[in-house]
Amino acid sequence: MSDPSGELPNLLAPIEADLERTREVLDRELSDNSPAVRDMLDHISRFRGKQLRAAMVLLCGRASGAWGPEHPQVAAVVEMIHLATLVHDDVLDGASVRRRVASVNTRWDNQVAVLLGDWLYARAFALSTRLQSPLVSRHLALTTQKICKGEIEQAGHRYDFDLSRDGYEAIAGAKTASLYAAACELGALYPDGDERTASELGLFGWEVGLAFQIVDDVLDLTGTQEEVGKPVGNDVDDGKVTLPVLHVYASADNSQRAAIRDAYTEPGLADRVGRLREVCDLRPGLEAARGRADELLRTALGRLSVLPDGPIRETLARAGSFVLQRRY
Amino acid sequence: MSDPSGELPNLLAPIEADLERTREVLDRELSDNSPAVRDMLDHISRFRGKQLRAAMVLLCGRASGAWGPEHPQVAAVVEMIHLATLVHDDVLDGASVRRRVASVNTRWDNQVAVLLGDWLYARAFALSTRLQSPLVSRHLALTTQKICKGEIEQAGHRYDFDLSRDGYEAIAGAKTASLYAAACELGALYPDGDERTASELGLFGWEVGLAFQIVDDVLDLTGTQEEVGKPVGNDVDDGKVTLPVLHVYASADNSQRAAIRDAYTEPGLADRVGRLREVCDLRPGLEAARGRADELLRTALGRLSVLPDGPIRETLARAGSFVLQRRY
Repeated sequence: MSDPSGELPNLLAPIEADLERTREVLDRELSDNSPAVRDMLDHISRFRGKQLRAAMVLLCGRASGAWGPEHPQVAAVVEMIHLATLVHDDVLDGASVRRRVASVNTRWDNQVAVLLGDWLYARAFALSTRLQSPLVSRHLALTTQKICKGEIEQAGHRYDFDLSRDGYEAIAGAKTASLYAAACELGALYPDGDERTASELGLFGWEVGLAFQIVDDVLDLTGTQEEVGKPVGNDVDDGKVTLPVLHVYASADNSQRAAIRDAYTEPGLADRVGRLREVCDLRPGLEAARGRADELLRTALGRLSVLPDGPIRETLARAGSFVLQRRY
Repeated sequence: MSDPSGELPNLLAPIEADLERTREVLDRELSDNSPAVRDMLDHISRFRGKQLRAAMVLLCGRASGAWGPEHPQVAAVVEMIHLATLVHDDVLDGASVRRRVASVNTRWDNQVAVLLGDWLYARAFALSTRLQSPLVSRHLALTTQKICKGEIEQAGHRYDFDLSRDGYEAIAGAKTASLYAAACELGALYPDGDERTASELGLFGWEVGLAFQIVDDVLDLTGTQEEVGKPVGNDVDDGKVTLPVLHVYASADNSQRAAIRDAYTEPGLADRVGRLREVCDLRPGLEAARGRADELLRTALGRLSVLPDGPIRETLARAGSFVLQRRY
């Protein structure tokens, strides 16, 4: 994912000390006395990325006043669960496309990637069980189930061109928005914050997370690898029919629908996104998806009125808006 | 794994009511309102197997007197973690059959098998966080890390013919014995049992679990698919050099060592175990491994003197001994 010109660190300057404490927790937790595990942890330390979910925990804690000394640990747990999902996502994305021709090296990496993801999940849960209140453990165990279920349902809807927008959003929400929602809600709730505020911030997180996923899906169709920071066109290769395509497909005639399906399924096709762009005009779908992301973000920002006015609320609004500023 | 003529259910008759309560918890937890998840859960319910780990929790609770109304839930959590490791093991091994039923990765694909395993881990942790005391969550999050680390280290020692017996046992212990140890220790400790008793029973579980893994490794070299319930020879195919082979290799001359390594590594070889049997006499290695399993079991049974005499202690001893009765 692109992080244009380091904007986010500047934006998060007001909570830099909290982020630094979170990074210290992560450095401590993402280490091990086994050389085999340590090697891999060193390797994945470069996917740590923007740590936007950790920032959400910290910002919602600071902004709501539900701040406690354990907030950096809570933020670290959320970030570790995200890291575990990333490690397993890489297995999943690679597995569906390249599995049949996997070299021994690829297979070996998958094997270890599954185990490392499992270790990260367990490590995150272990850290959460050391917190004073069981709230974080309970909440994040449920959230992790939601994420997995969203991914399982997504797998079940591969090549489903008739998926409704609600169906798409339920899946994208479960797999991506639920961790943002948990980050915001826990930030405002832990250890004993106001429930109404936490619930509103949970919805803020959900909407921001869903907007983020929609933008991600748009970028996968329109971006270049340089801009996006990872290969694009994966969704089409994997049979994931995302919002822009669902929109175009819904209003296409039968022959165009067949051509769209062929772009996803024709055996041996090298550039599926290129073919997709040839056989239909994606622009109305991309516009609709961007419009939906805008709408979600507007709703989300409206919820921040539950918070007292101030610089941290302002930072939270800017961090939320950041998801739409990614290049597309 | 073979379950000869239903001996185990008879053996466990004294705790049948507790096991039944555990199965009720499992039935409730291993269900979901998502059809995609439910299909897979229905499928894996067929490889629930002997539930020996759950039985260990229950027996250690009953035998130590540390019994509480939540013991069946604790037993279910342990069993669910075991089930999650089985689902991921199948992905790692590329296994196509588990307990005579197609594995999840064969019936669906690796992608959903990884996700289902993740879901099961999260589900198990969620159940553990609903217990009165955080003891089970804390203990099992650490145990799960140990299991993953053992598997990662095992992967790092593929084709390592110079692994010492201690090195082998550290890995086999972490990946298999640690969950038996946790089952026994938690059964005797939860919610407020005697620590010395729990610690002895934890060591009992470790030794029984390690004996179990050694027997499993022996069966992989000597059994048939019909007897063992899953394809045999997997370890050799996967480059896992287990105790019998390590023993034979250690006392082999250079040309025999080369032949043993070739049996593991020669490209395209169809029957690696067959080749291994041709190029060396495995019997001394098999004898040594069986001897070590016997020794571990004897030590384990000695530890039961920490418990009051009685029928449940007797049952625990028989359940421990059961691991050596599997056909080989």
